[in-house]
Amino acid sequence: MITWNNLDALTAYKKLMSLNGKVKLSKVLDQERVRSYIVPMAKGLVYNYAAKQVNEQILSLLQELADEQQLIKKYQTLLNGDIINTGENRKVLHHLARGQLGEDVLYDGKNLRSFYNEQLEKIQVFTKKVHSGEIVGSRGDTFTTIVQIGIGGSDLGPRALYLALDNWAVKHERKKLNAQFISNVDPDDAFCVLRGTELEKTLFILVSKSGTTQETLANESLVKKALTDAGLDSSKHIIAVTSETSPLAKNKGYLASFFMDDFIGGRYSSSSPVGGVALSLAFGFNTFTELLEGAHEADALSLENSIYKNPALLDALIGVYERNFLGYPMTAILPYSQALSRFPAHLQQVDMESNGKQVNRNSEEISYSTGPVIFGEPGTNGQHSFYQLLHQGTDAIPLQFIGFINSQSGFDIEVDGSTSQEKLCANLVAQIVAFATGKNDSIKNKCFLGERPSSVIKGAELNPAALGALLAHFENKIMFQGFIWNVNSFDQEGVQLGKLLTKKVLSGDMDPTLRAYADFFK
Amino acid sequence: MITWNNLDALTAYKKLMSLNGKVKLSKVLDQERVRSYIVPMAKGLVYNYAAKQVNEQILSLLQELADEQQLIKKYQTLLNGDIINTGENRKVLHHLARGQLGEDVLYDGKNLRSFYNEQLEKIQVFTKKVHSGEIVGSRGDTFTTIVQIGIGGSDLGPRALYLALDNWAVKHERKKLNAQFISNVDPDDAFCVLRGTELEKTLFILVSKSGTTQETLANESLVKKALTDAGLDSSKHIIAVTSETSPLAKNKGYLASFFMDDFIGGRYSSSSPVGGVALSLAFGFNTFTELLEGAHEADALSLENSIYKNPALLDALIGVYERNFLGYPMTAILPYSQALSRFPAHLQQVDMESNGKQVNRNSEEISYSTGPVIFGEPGTNGQHSFYQLLHQGTDAIPLQFIGFINSQSGFDIEVDGSTSQEKLCANLVAQIVAFATGKNDSIKNKCFLGERPSSVIKGAELNPAALGALLAHFENKIMFQGFIWNVNSFDQEGVQLGKLLTKKVLSGDMDPTLRAYADFFK
Repeated sequence: MITWNNLDALTAYKKLMSLNGKVKLSKVLDQERVRSYIVPMAKGLVYNYAAKQVNEQILSLLQELADEQQLIKKYQTLLNGDIINTGENRKVLHHLARGQLGEDVLYDGKNLRSFYNEQLEKIQVFTKKVHSGEIVGSRGDTFTTIVQIGIGGSDLGPRALYLALDNWAVKHERKKLNAQFISNVDPDDAFCVLRGTELEKTLFILVSKSGTTQETLANESLVKKALTDAGLDSSKHIIAVTSETSPLAKNKGYLASFFMDDFIGGRYSSSSPVGGVALSLAFGFNTFTELLEGAHEADALSLENSIYKNPALLDALIGVYERNFLGYPMTAILPYSQALSRFPAHLQQVDMESNGKQVNRNSEEISYSTGPVIFGEPGTNGQHSFYQLLHQGTDAIPLQFIGFINSQSGFDIEVDGSTSQEKLCANLVAQIVAFATGKNDSIKNKCFLGERPSSVIKGAELNPAALGALLAHFENKIMFQGFIWNVNSFDQEGVQLGKLLTKKVLSGDMDPTLRAYADFFK
Repeated sequence: MITWNNLDALTAYKKLMSLNGKVKLSKVLDQERVRSYIVPMAKGLVYNYAAKQVNEQILSLLQELADEQQLIKKYQTLLNGDIINTGENRKVLHHLARGQLGEDVLYDGKNLRSFYNEQLEKIQVFTKKVHSGEIVGSRGDTFTTIVQIGIGGSDLGPRALYLALDNWAVKHERKKLNAQFISNVDPDDAFCVLRGTELEKTLFILVSKSGTTQETLANESLVKKALTDAGLDSSKHIIAVTSETSPLAKNKGYLASFFMDDFIGGRYSSSSPVGGVALSLAFGFNTFTELLEGAHEADALSLENSIYKNPALLDALIGVYERNFLGYPMTAILPYSQALSRFPAHLQQVDMESNGKQVNRNSEEISYSTGPVIFGEPGTNGQHSFYQLLHQGTDAIPLQFIGFINSQSGFDIEVDGSTSQEKLCANLVAQIVAFATGKNDSIKNKCFLGERPSSVIKGAELNPAALGALLAHFENKIMFQGFIWNVNSFDQEGVQLGKLLTKKVLSGDMDPTLRAYADFFK
């Protein structure tokens, strides 16, 4: 029997609240802790939390909290197809798109795992035809480029994953097509992409679950205009990724259509056809299935009850400890990997859109903090930018490092006794210690207070499987945090008011204040 | 006579602290306020602060604070060449790189305005030779591409400005060369750029003021290796931007060298040769000088004493009011312009590296908050990502919108009765009102508390002059905030500890904890 409780109703919450003082990293961080505060992740990744402000007592209470809040049981009911997205009365099934972990999920007479597999097979067949030259543009050109048209979850995740694997695919001879992305309703976005593209060799992927996204439909019109102006048949240059019930699905103007359903939220759709079509076309279908395997392995690991065996669960609990017990309002994501340059922007959506909520899943007010602000840029770039504030600003900010022992390209050279890759890793580990332990100096401007908590995820190399594992780790962490805070992590009512007022502006039905702003922009 | 006081020593600070309660936006925001809470900026931009939580009383106290803290006088002494960067014993002269506003600044027998002008002339002459085909690659190819190698201020600002003007330059037939950037020490960064580049047609711009930046030297070696492997003469393919005293300046292995000096900090160097060489090569020298004129006009406007005539000063004061009196720890930068996609990342550096400080300019501890965390992505993209938390999260976050009436490209189409550009602006004004006034609903999940303060900068079009004005606005805002907080906004001691520990890792001279982390990454 599952009970949905607010965080502050839990016994473990009260015990944690009664603890006094912070763990002092400069006192506790030693080699033994670095070696032992480790949890294995999927696909050979490792989660190291030695530089987090926790100790055995706190960890044991976090385990109690996990058990009392029934986090694993809640995850199981999600896997089994229960209505977890209460506000929208929907199942939450992005895990099922990468493998079966719970019971069969039936809907409308369909086994949904079979439905997701059918879509995968369609992607495989279509991809092969494009790569072999069986499917070509309206003038007979082989496609060299794809352009995904989508926004939010139809853009950030697929774009981040594409960038993450581009070098790897080149190095491993998997690279098939270049990818570009058009997302913003700002027409300069489409202009910029289209002017750099040979339209006759370009396949556009139109992605909108509802088929009604304002930005995406506006960009589709711009793209169709460009294709028509170039004398091309747009129906031979556009494919759609949408739900079976959307207006796009009924439109015959597309070369092919691939379907997801309402049970895969936009920000969790990278491992559905929303990401899968683009990644398969760019890097081959196998690259995408390897990513799904990595994600599935992480999903399976997330079923472990013990925080010492379940890195997503532990990461989630430490994050809540930092947010609600230590009072930190934000978290920085710092991948020491240029390939992950847009991964923080993707996690910014997944996290902030999921858990940036002020009511619980029953739509009742809650009186504790929920999701933090997420931001980040790759290291070492960030070191030459905002790290000054992270080290010596007046607020401490928890950090999430990510790094890999090897580069994707192997392109390297020794300068001053070390390769670039060695310098990259040396910087990463140096930063962890600098942030945690700080440094005293008689000149106050040269003092570092330290006590900036961080964790680090390490891998051997960023390949498709590791990337899938990394993606699912964060998705599951955020899911667990939603369960802990007792919020619905799968709706986004907060986007509605802006949409409503935008309609008013465009229709001219404005109150005086809105009209004054609209006039200001004339 | 100038006195450098801590913020909390000011009479105006105490008066502001004694105020009770917050201005309620849902009560005060009306059409009259939208029309009157406006300050003209340089080059036709306008700053609108109607949706900020201020009123006449608070504004009047902020003016008192500006006067008492002698903000304009401090700016004047900076312009006149005083040692404002106390920790490093340096003048602060990025304003002088765009025009003369104070007295002549002499150093080492040189008039520094003349020195900066000489560099500009060198850029003009060199740029013309590249564009005319007088200077070509080592195999005689005309250059089609530049690649800037630099990190931090040598990367973020130039990159953000290049992206901001690329569409505009195409539309106005100013586009001369494509630009790419290599910044990260991660060798995959260089690999990714180099594999997409025709090396024989590429001119590399190596940028490091000190000539000792680890990342930049490592990337220079990778680039030289690639050039040599391709049978090209690297000395015909690399130019340097550095200080006259750096090791790079003495190196004869470059086709040309351009100089800045120690008085222009990295994050303020976009309007020096650090940005100027790349922008002139990409878009022509005139494009760069138009940008400088916009910045110079904004610099001149920043000398106004009245907050109602000085938008950078007012923006700075409202920011401090939000940080120190209302307690907001972060600010989001939200440009409704895809061209400004990396402008928030640049401002993240300028702001957080300048004012993320825990000591005052005399290296004494201070007991109030300084620079906030800065993050942001372009609208409307952000609306489909992190805006959920901004609207309905448990913490309110102040917002800085930026928008333009016209697109850069003019490429547009009407869909459902409005163009994409009209939709873009409609979304922007709708968001301002939604954030400020919120919406009640009997269902709590559909409630918007509002009271999320924002300001908006509006322009007719994002062209070089407007971009220069925008850049200088934020630089000067951050400078004024540094004066208010009495910190040194022009050093960055916070980056030193990480550098030190990285050296230890690379040399093997580690304490056990650092060694344990280094071993973890093997």
